[in-house]
Amino acid sequence: MERNIKEIISRMSLEEKAEFCSGVGAWYTTALPKHGIPSIMMTDGPHGLRKQNGAEDHMGLNESVPATCFPTAAGLASSWNRELVEQVGVALGEECQAEGVGIILGPGANIKRSPLCGRNFEYFSEDPYLSSELTTKHIQGVQSQGVGTSLKHFAVNNQETRRFNIDVILDERTFREIYLASFEGAVVNAQPWTIMSAYNKINGIFCSENRRLLTEILRNEWGFEGFVVSDWGAVSEREIALAAGLDLEMPTSNGVGSRKIIEAIQKGSIEINTLDAAVENILTVIFRAVDLQKENATYDQEAHHQFARVVAAESMVLLKNENDVLPLDKKGSIAVLGAFAKKPRYQGAGSSRVQPTKLDIPYEEIQRVAKDAELLYAEGYSLENDELNEEMIEAAKKVASQVDAAILFVGLPEKYDAEGVDRKHLGLPDNQVALIEAVSTVQEKIILVLLNGSAVEMPWIHNSQAVLEAYLGGQAMAGAVADLLFGVQNPSGKLAETFPEKLSHTSSFINFPGERHQVEYREGLFIGYRYFDKVDTKPLFPFGHGLSYTSFEYSDLRINKSEITDAEELEVTVNVRNSGHRAGKEIVQLYVKDIESSVLRPIKELKGFEKVTLEPGEEKQVTFRLGKRAFAYYHVDLQDWYVESGEFEILIGKSSEDIQLSHTIVVLSTTNVRKKFTLDSTLGDIRTETAGAELVSKILMGMGFGSTRTDAPFGMDMDALLHSLKLRIVESQGVIPKENLEELLVALNDS
Amino acid sequence: MERNIKEIISRMSLEEKAEFCSGVGAWYTTALPKHGIPSIMMTDGPHGLRKQNGAEDHMGLNESVPATCFPTAAGLASSWNRELVEQVGVALGEECQAEGVGIILGPGANIKRSPLCGRNFEYFSEDPYLSSELTTKHIQGVQSQGVGTSLKHFAVNNQETRRFNIDVILDERTFREIYLASFEGAVVNAQPWTIMSAYNKINGIFCSENRRLLTEILRNEWGFEGFVVSDWGAVSEREIALAAGLDLEMPTSNGVGSRKIIEAIQKGSIEINTLDAAVENILTVIFRAVDLQKENATYDQEAHHQFARVVAAESMVLLKNENDVLPLDKKGSIAVLGAFAKKPRYQGAGSSRVQPTKLDIPYEEIQRVAKDAELLYAEGYSLENDELNEEMIEAAKKVASQVDAAILFVGLPEKYDAEGVDRKHLGLPDNQVALIEAVSTVQEKIILVLLNGSAVEMPWIHNSQAVLEAYLGGQAMAGAVADLLFGVQNPSGKLAETFPEKLSHTSSFINFPGERHQVEYREGLFIGYRYFDKVDTKPLFPFGHGLSYTSFEYSDLRINKSEITDAEELEVTVNVRNSGHRAGKEIVQLYVKDIESSVLRPIKELKGFEKVTLEPGEEKQVTFRLGKRAFAYYHVDLQDWYVESGEFEILIGKSSEDIQLSHTIVVLSTTNVRKKFTLDSTLGDIRTETAGAELVSKILMGMGFGSTRTDAPFGMDMDALLHSLKLRIVESQGVIPKENLEELLVALNDS
Repeated sequence: MERNIKEIISRMSLEEKAEFCSGVGAWYTTALPKHGIPSIMMTDGPHGLRKQNGAEDHMGLNESVPATCFPTAAGLASSWNRELVEQVGVALGEECQAEGVGIILGPGANIKRSPLCGRNFEYFSEDPYLSSELTTKHIQGVQSQGVGTSLKHFAVNNQETRRFNIDVILDERTFREIYLASFEGAVVNAQPWTIMSAYNKINGIFCSENRRLLTEILRNEWGFEGFVVSDWGAVSEREIALAAGLDLEMPTSNGVGSRKIIEAIQKGSIEINTLDAAVENILTVIFRAVDLQKENATYDQEAHHQFARVVAAESMVLLKNENDVLPLDKKGSIAVLGAFAKKPRYQGAGSSRVQPTKLDIPYEEIQRVAKDAELLYAEGYSLENDELNEEMIEAAKKVASQVDAAILFVGLPEKYDAEGVDRKHLGLPDNQVALIEAVSTVQEKIILVLLNGSAVEMPWIHNSQAVLEAYLGGQAMAGAVADLLFGVQNPSGKLAETFPEKLSHTSSFINFPGERHQVEYREGLFIGYRYFDKVDTKPLFPFGHGLSYTSFEYSDLRINKSEITDAEELEVTVNVRNSGHRAGKEIVQLYVKDIESSVLRPIKELKGFEKVTLEPGEEKQVTFRLGKRAFAYYHVDLQDWYVESGEFEILIGKSSEDIQLSHTIVVLSTTNVRKKFTLDSTLGDIRTETAGAELVSKILMGMGFGSTRTDAPFGMDMDALLHSLKLRIVESQGVIPKENLEELLVALNDS
Repeated sequence: MERNIKEIISRMSLEEKAEFCSGVGAWYTTALPKHGIPSIMMTDGPHGLRKQNGAEDHMGLNESVPATCFPTAAGLASSWNRELVEQVGVALGEECQAEGVGIILGPGANIKRSPLCGRNFEYFSEDPYLSSELTTKHIQGVQSQGVGTSLKHFAVNNQETRRFNIDVILDERTFREIYLASFEGAVVNAQPWTIMSAYNKINGIFCSENRRLLTEILRNEWGFEGFVVSDWGAVSEREIALAAGLDLEMPTSNGVGSRKIIEAIQKGSIEINTLDAAVENILTVIFRAVDLQKENATYDQEAHHQFARVVAAESMVLLKNENDVLPLDKKGSIAVLGAFAKKPRYQGAGSSRVQPTKLDIPYEEIQRVAKDAELLYAEGYSLENDELNEEMIEAAKKVASQVDAAILFVGLPEKYDAEGVDRKHLGLPDNQVALIEAVSTVQEKIILVLLNGSAVEMPWIHNSQAVLEAYLGGQAMAGAVADLLFGVQNPSGKLAETFPEKLSHTSSFINFPGERHQVEYREGLFIGYRYFDKVDTKPLFPFGHGLSYTSFEYSDLRINKSEITDAEELEVTVNVRNSGHRAGKEIVQLYVKDIESSVLRPIKELKGFEKVTLEPGEEKQVTFRLGKRAFAYYHVDLQDWYVESGEFEILIGKSSEDIQLSHTIVVLSTTNVRKKFTLDSTLGDIRTETAGAELVSKILMGMGFGSTRTDAPFGMDMDALLHSLKLRIVESQGVIPKENLEELLVALNDS
């Protein structure tokens, strides 16, 4: 429907506009029927809808309507499957339409800085490229159904500890290259209808009051066209937030917010245009949502459930498979151990928690898939607490000693993967560890199935022959696990996050979750594989790692040009062949390495990936296109992305550690960066410029060091010494008067 | 001689005062005979005198008079022997007197932030307590002879790369607890006559122009009474430096400096009092030096040489001694391999390089000590370059295959340990590594003697049975090595720095030597063992490690009180017994661990050490006294040292890794730190105060959460969630009006 939004705004009173910029209750925008403005509903849930069906309460704590619970983002990301993630988005969009929801609050593009973050299960990756690619597809999927998304939590909201007042201190390159990059691709490529500003501060300023973040970067640089909504309760001073670019405050502030806006407009500290722009941003999206709302929409719960099973299977990662113990035979006797086998963990705690339409149980699904197998069950541990129970363990040992193989369901109880609280360690509960160790004394064939939202340490891994990381696989997790364990499906997920051997090996270890109200990201760019690469420490399982029941061979890496400028695109192709005996999917990863750089850079960074389906013996060609950003770093002085001319290595790998092929090319910058010399520049710096070399030579002559003086008195490197001197010394030592020197500098900087 | 310094100053003209604040030539202060002011000489050399005897040149490059070359600080520190270091100081003082030198430029109290720093050989330790204790004794020794010291390089001068213009960015606690602490103890306890300001900047301000550093901290806080001299060429703007507290500019600036001072005084930007104070500071020291100058002083070169041998033996660290291969028998056939055996490395390159009075040669000293042994020699590698020479290696193998044992002299060529240049890696030259590996194929009994100024990686260590770290042992190094290898002396040194397995495991790895003109100390407090402890990574050899030919047993740790206030002293005693069959010396180390802290702290910190000499079977009691500083951290808000009340563990160890005994005590703070709450404080923070608990309870009631609401909706920890909310939310959500809330805050902060 065509509407003249500006005309509508012109008819609204100041009070109406101000009121419109705050929500009503917990989930609705403000309706203004007089102006033909309806209300739309927003609800939680990146991996499923959480629409309250009872009375809505202040913090949205009541029961919600049933909806399909898909794997959470940690699992979804492990699929590395753009189309699959998009289809999940489509399914979510369908459910939103069926429930009359206009905007779903997600996806979350925050980066996994530390595996301890309690909300990591809702986020995609430690890598901004992978995260932004999948976030993009998620948004495109949902929005293809006429339903909006709310990309969250913008930005640098990477811990739950003190999330409401933590001040994140980080440098500009880390901000741009890691934390913002994860959002940037999604905003530019998918245009989420809304973006949600986070609770925390960035370098001293709350995200919700951060004009640089919400306006300069988000709108001016990235071209965001939707509205900015606060995380629930993230607004402190409403008028400052409005001026910064925060359009909609949620939930209702019971009139506090609008009163502050009105006062600010009345006393002139904010212009009415600013308020009008916010109203226009919100209105545009509301009308779009209303126009795209489908009458009497429904969705097929069973079909969505079956789809959730497919998604779950692609989201799981086979970490270890010694002696090809997997897939298991569908016969013989099998112990299914662990309380999770009957009371599964399949989603996280917090605002993302979905009331599933149905829930599959691992023990039952295993029996269904392996019809002829004799299953024995023992609980093994309690979910009530973490203390070990000798009786349960003895019972599990007894069962395990009688069977051909034992499948142990272990993982993290709900309180470990929860919004609002970070983990304190990466261990499993003591009672589960004790179970693993006890069972290993009576059974060799141990298959561990891990149900958890984020990386865990595995000091007990030697007790197992296989480990399947099932993450939080959603309501159909159980069937997917059964399919994978018995070879109905072939595992094809790879880790979207590094599993460290020990928490203390992660780069944020010392500075997580910070001190008092502040957390310093001292590790800078070096999180996840960027850190393990850099310091040459082996993780337990590297980023990008994941096994299959078949094998893949890589060959014939071709690059269309040996030299490009940063305005051109590079085309990279590589052949991948299924060299085993089962159909399977391989995730081909492309990393770029800047061989030499004048600034600190990671050893390599992910810049491309493709998931390929291959029948046994089949070969396919995979193509990647790399533009400027694949080679660039964020240049702080230029305030732009910049490629430093030189050699880059294109690496093709099965994981970040397992590089199969590589090729070196040259990229030339088309940007001219002028050096600016000062009195504190060294003679060595200045010498690198043609005009500077003459100056330096003159200065050294003046100081009594001719060009012939290259001997090494008392063992020192005289050349290095002289060229490390700062220009100023020739003035302070009386070689050249200051005025003359400053003239020379001006000439040099202008040359 | 009594002089009225103020009266002298009152007679000096502005020009004379300004001139007096700059040196003459390279090494002398300005004489003003008209006012009875003589000139004194300053010369280089923490571990020996470098007094130029030819024409002095601009940068002091010419030959110097012979002087005793003692082990450099890296070795000296490994002795952990306060008395020994003091005696070295005495010897240096004697030589200064004999040469008419008024002030010797040293010692260097800079901290070994990275093992790559080219000048580490001149510094004591990675630990500020050990460094400041030994620096104190060094200064006291020299100054006991009526000769001044110049404690250098003040401050945070921890790399050679861009040392003239690097800007060191570090946080206040790291500055205070690590880098300044190393100087602080020496200034307070030993009052060096002078202190030398470093070349670099700290947080944007050159040390030589840094009023906070040179006046507020050094004089006002620490009570420094001497004069501040610039590192040679470290002055940029003389008048700013003067105002900051830099008294004497060195070397001469050919009139530039004094001209700037005169102009500044004339135009009133600096008060004459400031200049007068600098003149007084310098004059006081000059007159003291002159008064204490001994007529016709001499020293016994041979006695000093013999003493240097004793010092060297205590400075060496036996890192490894498999199967007790050491000490060697003084008979049989022994291969002495490596060019260093005949052309030893014994000191570093740069301004500290001494012209030794004599030089012992390892091959010769070994023959002298092991008279009856048959020695075979092969050069093994060239010192001209790092490339391996197959012929030399073959010759060495041939020799090694014929003998009972092989002693390999390896280490770093001079260019690796040099002022002005940092190392790029921690490896030995390729040709030396090849020699070790080649010899190990024909000989099992390999003893490596390392000659180097700082830690090296040892990927080849499995090829050896013993490793003696001899550091840069001075002119009598060779005899000390022979004494130790054959058991004439028992090794008693322990590492004053961590030897990492790999450079990349050190905490400064990513941020050393910085980018462009800046280096960020992002690792903060966590350097050396503080880092390896914290991240639970095993180094190759830990801080404090060192073997002996005898064994020691620790027992009976007693602590005089189980609880003290931070105004009291704790007395700790422990018994140490020589449980082996040789006389030996043990270094007993005391570390303090703050069991729980609200701020980030190292796992443990060295707070006491004693070196004890023990005959076989002998037992001694060692006593430590611990005051406030042993438990304190630097409290940034208080701007003072602060002990957080609670439990502390007293750890007694043979090394930082090998803790033998421990005991827990309680220390109570006598300082009351007031918390200051703001609108951004969390309800949880506020609840910790009695008055706050009531407020929080009132607020939660107002928000609809009674105290009974402790259930966990959608799996979240509701209590944690509510208490992580910030106070401001009760205002922005309209629960309590802002005015009322601010009143409540004021009341809370005043309660």
